[in-house]
Amino acid sequence: MIGRRARRMLSAMLIAGDIRAFIESQRVGRLATVDKGARPHVVPICFALAQGDVLYTAIDEKPKSGDVTRLRRIRNVIANPRVQVLFDRYDDGDWSKLRYVQLRGTARVLGLDDEHAAAVALLRDRYTQYLVMGLERRPVIAIDVQRVVAWP
Amino acid sequence: MIGRRARRMLSAMLIAGDIRAFIESQRVGRLATVDKGARPHVVPICFALAQGDVLYTAIDEKPKSGDVTRLRRIRNVIANPRVQVLFDRYDDGDWSKLRYVQLRGTARVLGLDDEHAAAVALLRDRYTQYLVMGLERRPVIAIDVQRVVAWP
Repeated sequence: MIGRRARRMLSAMLIAGDIRAFIESQRVGRLATVDKGARPHVVPICFALAQGDVLYTAIDEKPKSGDVTRLRRIRNVIANPRVQVLFDRYDDGDWSKLRYVQLRGTARVLGLDDEHAAAVALLRDRYTQYLVMGLERRPVIAIDVQRVVAWP
Repeated sequence: MIGRRARRMLSAMLIAGDIRAFIESQRVGRLATVDKGARPHVVPICFALAQGDVLYTAIDEKPKSGDVTRLRRIRNVIANPRVQVLFDRYDDGDWSKLRYVQLRGTARVLGLDDEHAAAVALLRDRYTQYLVMGLERRPVIAIDVQRVVAWP
């Protein structure tokens, strides 16, 4: 039997080297989910990439109050955890610089547990704006990456 | 009975004014589709927005040869025409400038007809790179926009 930590270590090969550096260099990814009616939904996200091919993103935007479980991305990943996150680079003057990376995986909405606390710390490392936001009590989505597609 | 042109005129109210200007100012959108297995797929796209709330994007990338109908975005929209296109703006120094617009609609893969020719002309207006690409014989996806969501 392989424990959670061991599984993460094994899958740590998925996002490595140049692809990890490219993702880390991006400030925004785009998270695509699917609703119950097989309609796609895509939003820009701030994110942090952890060791072990897990990506975290917090629900930091409006509605800031109210029932965040009603947010479409949350409803979608609860109904269908299969998600994709896109990172891309565009250069209007030189299309040879165009690049994108897709992370395909499954999403989990974290409870307010140790993983949530670690995710908040990682997000605050990347975005100083998060230092003054009460992310501790807000939902965090964890995405366990199962496949990486890089173009070109 | 309302003809195609009349329907387009009616729906021309959907993307207007400030939202149209925001989309036009973007060089890249992100197109989300769904495959047969309810998995999302999202790619960066170059695009042109026509009058009447139709958005066009060409298959201009690899594989440049071979059977382009095997491209995932093409297979997906044939299996499930419901798509979403995201346009967003990020500003690391000022999150009050963050903005996004989602266009929800249905996709059609155009034949090599008059609409295809018009779409290629619109795309070449926006991207000089397309002037030297043989888009005339490459697939163009038309997206008929049915709903616009703007945040904030």
